[in-house]
Amino acid sequence: MKLSKTFVKTFREVGKDETAKNAELLIRAGYINKEMAGVYSYLPLGLKTLKNIENIIREELNKIGCEEINLTALQNPEPWEKSGRWNSDKMDIWFKTELASGGELGLAPTHEEPITNLMKKYISSYKDLPIYAYQFQTKFRNELRAKSGILRTREFLMKDLYSFTADEETHNEFYEKATGAYFKIYDRLGLGDCTYKCFASGGVFSKYSHEFQTFLPVGEDTVYYNKDKTVVLNEEVLNDEVLVDLGVKREELEKTNAAEVGNIFTLKYKFSEPLDLTFNDKDGERKTVYMGCYGIGVSRVMGVIVEKYADEKGLIWPENIAPFKYYLIGIGEEGEKKALELYEKNPENIILDDRDLRPGQKFADSELMGIPYRVVISDKTLAEGSVEITERKTGESKMIKLEDLKVEA
Amino acid sequence: MKLSKTFVKTFREVGKDETAKNAELLIRAGYINKEMAGVYSYLPLGLKTLKNIENIIREELNKIGCEEINLTALQNPEPWEKSGRWNSDKMDIWFKTELASGGELGLAPTHEEPITNLMKKYISSYKDLPIYAYQFQTKFRNELRAKSGILRTREFLMKDLYSFTADEETHNEFYEKATGAYFKIYDRLGLGDCTYKCFASGGVFSKYSHEFQTFLPVGEDTVYYNKDKTVVLNEEVLNDEVLVDLGVKREELEKTNAAEVGNIFTLKYKFSEPLDLTFNDKDGERKTVYMGCYGIGVSRVMGVIVEKYADEKGLIWPENIAPFKYYLIGIGEEGEKKALELYEKNPENIILDDRDLRPGQKFADSELMGIPYRVVISDKTLAEGSVEITERKTGESKMIKLEDLKVEA
Repeated sequence: MKLSKTFVKTFREVGKDETAKNAELLIRAGYINKEMAGVYSYLPLGLKTLKNIENIIREELNKIGCEEINLTALQNPEPWEKSGRWNSDKMDIWFKTELASGGELGLAPTHEEPITNLMKKYISSYKDLPIYAYQFQTKFRNELRAKSGILRTREFLMKDLYSFTADEETHNEFYEKATGAYFKIYDRLGLGDCTYKCFASGGVFSKYSHEFQTFLPVGEDTVYYNKDKTVVLNEEVLNDEVLVDLGVKREELEKTNAAEVGNIFTLKYKFSEPLDLTFNDKDGERKTVYMGCYGIGVSRVMGVIVEKYADEKGLIWPENIAPFKYYLIGIGEEGEKKALELYEKNPENIILDDRDLRPGQKFADSELMGIPYRVVISDKTLAEGSVEITERKTGESKMIKLEDLKVEA
Repeated sequence: MKLSKTFVKTFREVGKDETAKNAELLIRAGYINKEMAGVYSYLPLGLKTLKNIENIIREELNKIGCEEINLTALQNPEPWEKSGRWNSDKMDIWFKTELASGGELGLAPTHEEPITNLMKKYISSYKDLPIYAYQFQTKFRNELRAKSGILRTREFLMKDLYSFTADEETHNEFYEKATGAYFKIYDRLGLGDCTYKCFASGGVFSKYSHEFQTFLPVGEDTVYYNKDKTVVLNEEVLNDEVLVDLGVKREELEKTNAAEVGNIFTLKYKFSEPLDLTFNDKDGERKTVYMGCYGIGVSRVMGVIVEKYADEKGLIWPENIAPFKYYLIGIGEEGEKKALELYEKNPENIILDDRDLRPGQKFADSELMGIPYRVVISDKTLAEGSVEITERKTGESKMIKLEDLKVEA
């Protein structure tokens, strides 16, 4: 990306109504735009980062045999009436609307009901099972308040995976596989060293569930953990029964803030029973499908990564998800020429700051945008056949030979 | 994709309420699911096809310097009130909803207002122009009727591109470039030989516009064209003034049905004026930004391709957008073994029909699914070191040497 050609710009300030660090920095760095409270659009850099996160999730889910689909936002009340969740007392975050031709519709805040309903067409025999289907879909949630930037919004991108198995045993095997895939995902996203599987309430789904919690000072959740973090539990389930079950004592636990970056639920027959999703077993018996669901808020995860890594100068992206790897600045006539040459080798991987600005402003923008490596080519560095490369994360600079800078990969 | 592992299935019949050929075949072939009238979800094969179309459009737009973004579905009334389109008399296809915290919201049926509003932050000087930004976004349109399958739905994927230029001249240059990109897109989608730029009404935007019309018996539009198809116009603008402008006589024109697969509008100041999108020109003068918009209904185009190519046996996909290139059937022990071996060389490009079914059923499904090449490997073909390859489009079969079947790229 040539900065002279993109409409992306950075800003010194954002509106005072933006109090969350993640949204403030992402807006200032030109990654996102606030359309209204809790509703953000994604600009070129933001969309590229979001897609990088999405692709990592997709790759890991495909590896464990999941299939990608895309359900709809508009929802027919029927399956939700069967599960009881059409009622706003049961689910208070609905956006509802009306058909011009008559009849109420909802905007999907989640997709258990429509996918259970869909699978009635595709599941009739034990031979059709198991099924693991996921999607990247925009969810709509009518949150009363929205003040955590892209961590909790009214419209957001979510990956939701649903499992359909013939029995609990197959479910449990897949649940473990999905857990493994989640840890690989967080590793690749740069959250591996501070994200833990956490025992939590099952919410509307079940008595208990598992969350993946990233330990983070600004996290909205409070979790308790033992010394080696083999036991982590959400404050909401800190009671004697759970402590006995998990085999820990209250006094062994420490407390921290954490941000939820995923959750997995054993749904059992919660949706398949009221929606009558059944199959013929090997012995001809009619049985109800056993279900699970597995979520990751993609845009939320992006916000958590910002909160974890950013510093006073701006964003810092792990290499895996950065929109570009290099931020290239040419200084002086020869420097600019060489920078352009280098850029053209791999425009997909490089931001070329070819704007008519002072180097100081370019340095500041490279930091605000959080690109992993800033590369400066000037007449001075060229005199030594070198470039100066600075790592955003550590701030460390070194000179390397021009031919050692590999931009191609 | 191994058919034994996917949940995708084919169906002999669909519900009687589905009258459009495109949706009927796509549902029967397991590509999409009808959630309700005018609302379809995309299953693995359907989503893959849709993404292939999306990628072709993306590549061609990136080539002409466009930048990808992602705006939101939820809409603040404010910018729409300024343009006058919040009012349902002006735009009668709104889905509207309400915030729990109070206030009306809309679901975007299009995005002129929000992108104009967004650009107020990014455009202040002539140096910021031109800007060409596009997105692939779900649009919501509260259509009174929905009966053309995925050609006209209440929720659909659209590519919408918006241009912002300092003057009409730059606009016109880009308008021509966009036209060129559109023709390349239709070529790559397999619609090149029957898609024409068509003079049309400007709808709510302007007096006139251009549509891209694919000549097709089931198309909902009626267009008139001259012998060499250098002049094509929509019935709605067939009047003396337009005929003079286009330099044709009424009696030179023939009539046909056509399906719109894209449209481009010169918006001029239609949105930038009421929303006050201005810039400082070179001479310091404050000027209003000149705008254009350029749409392609991605899911609609997928439906048009179905309508154009499908035959009585099922779907037929052009190679460029087919979800898979080969449909592989192994017959007999050795045939099955060899088929699996071949499949593993490039699972991304091959459907392996490893289900426990009669070959006849597999042949029928390969035709219904519209995969470009069916490859049969049996003990008999293997005896000659060959496979039988059948082109879906022509139905022609031939034997080719095993080593001549290139599945890799």
